[in-house]
Amino acid sequence: MAVGDLHFHEHRVARELKEKRNQHKSRVIWFTGLSGSGKSTVANATEKILHDMGLQTYILDGDNVRMGLNKDLGFSPEDRTENIRRITEVAKLFADSGSIVLTAFISPYRADRDKARGIISNEDFIEVFVNADLSICEDRDPKGLYKKARAGEIKGFTGIDAPYETPLNPELILETDKKDIETCAQIVVDYLAEEGIISK
Amino acid sequence: MAVGDLHFHEHRVARELKEKRNQHKSRVIWFTGLSGSGKSTVANATEKILHDMGLQTYILDGDNVRMGLNKDLGFSPEDRTENIRRITEVAKLFADSGSIVLTAFISPYRADRDKARGIISNEDFIEVFVNADLSICEDRDPKGLYKKARAGEIKGFTGIDAPYETPLNPELILETDKKDIETCAQIVVDYLAEEGIISK
Repeated sequence: MAVGDLHFHEHRVARELKEKRNQHKSRVIWFTGLSGSGKSTVANATEKILHDMGLQTYILDGDNVRMGLNKDLGFSPEDRTENIRRITEVAKLFADSGSIVLTAFISPYRADRDKARGIISNEDFIEVFVNADLSICEDRDPKGLYKKARAGEIKGFTGIDAPYETPLNPELILETDKKDIETCAQIVVDYLAEEGIISK
Repeated sequence: MAVGDLHFHEHRVARELKEKRNQHKSRVIWFTGLSGSGKSTVANATEKILHDMGLQTYILDGDNVRMGLNKDLGFSPEDRTENIRRITEVAKLFADSGSIVLTAFISPYRADRDKARGIISNEDFIEVFVNADLSICEDRDPKGLYKKARAGEIKGFTGIDAPYETPLNPELILETDKKDIETCAQIVVDYLAEEGIISK
């Protein structure tokens, strides 16, 4: 049975109606950056502001996705690519459901992020580069992972012995080594308001 | 890098707060049945009623999932199991986001559906057996798939040369060969109200 044998059912409740219910547009806010850069922390702070404004939001991050949907995947380049592909498709479904979905993954490869933008659509995809110097991320080391990577206990760790490809043209750059978390989250919220995605 | 190295971030907006925003509880309504039994049609009709009541809803079905997240999977027993596993995990995320998510998949294997219930939680999982005689499904044949299966053009088609394992203890049974679509959809909505999941 080929996928070509499937057809879209008409009459489903359209995204536009879900957006109307929620009184804001759907978007995927894609946070990318090194481990320890503050992706999840900023994403959580951003979601809190948006939720308190009454918006329909959700966060996808390494924790809830790696322990469920992608628990069959490791950290090889191929598995990282499949990890991001699945997250992309799930984020697209959430956008289709009328949500503002915030994804917080290292997503180190430019090609994977560009593919995400292509699948989700340029209009719906907001790339947020959470930028902090490697040395600072390594100092923070909230989960002790850099220490393990330096000790050789973890192989293929982004920034140590696996690459991080810096975004060339992100919608936003947040310098979490220069600004505090609340300020960074507010930058994202202000962007959404300026773009007419949410009401001020 | 082992998954055990990941930790749940605190301070995310809890499901309970999202449910409070939406003024209803989250659930996964799992429609299962033969091709042509009316799963997607009833799911769409149910969603329309719930959306018109002001609820946050989403449908996952073979069409939007098979063309995206699961486009790497075929219809072998292993791929069907992986298909349902991924759908289960995505449905769980939607429930966590405060949505009532309706899934419409043949999901022919009892073990896969029971696993879905276990992963999602017994409380959140509402199994709806969309029951119509094979002969009627085959007469309807909305996508011409039974015809192809009978002609041997499609292999491993549920009900023809692949098994469908009838639910033993579903929360609801909808006899779409005896009742019309709107009546079936209303049965689901009434169930949600009786269970206190939505307000009447």
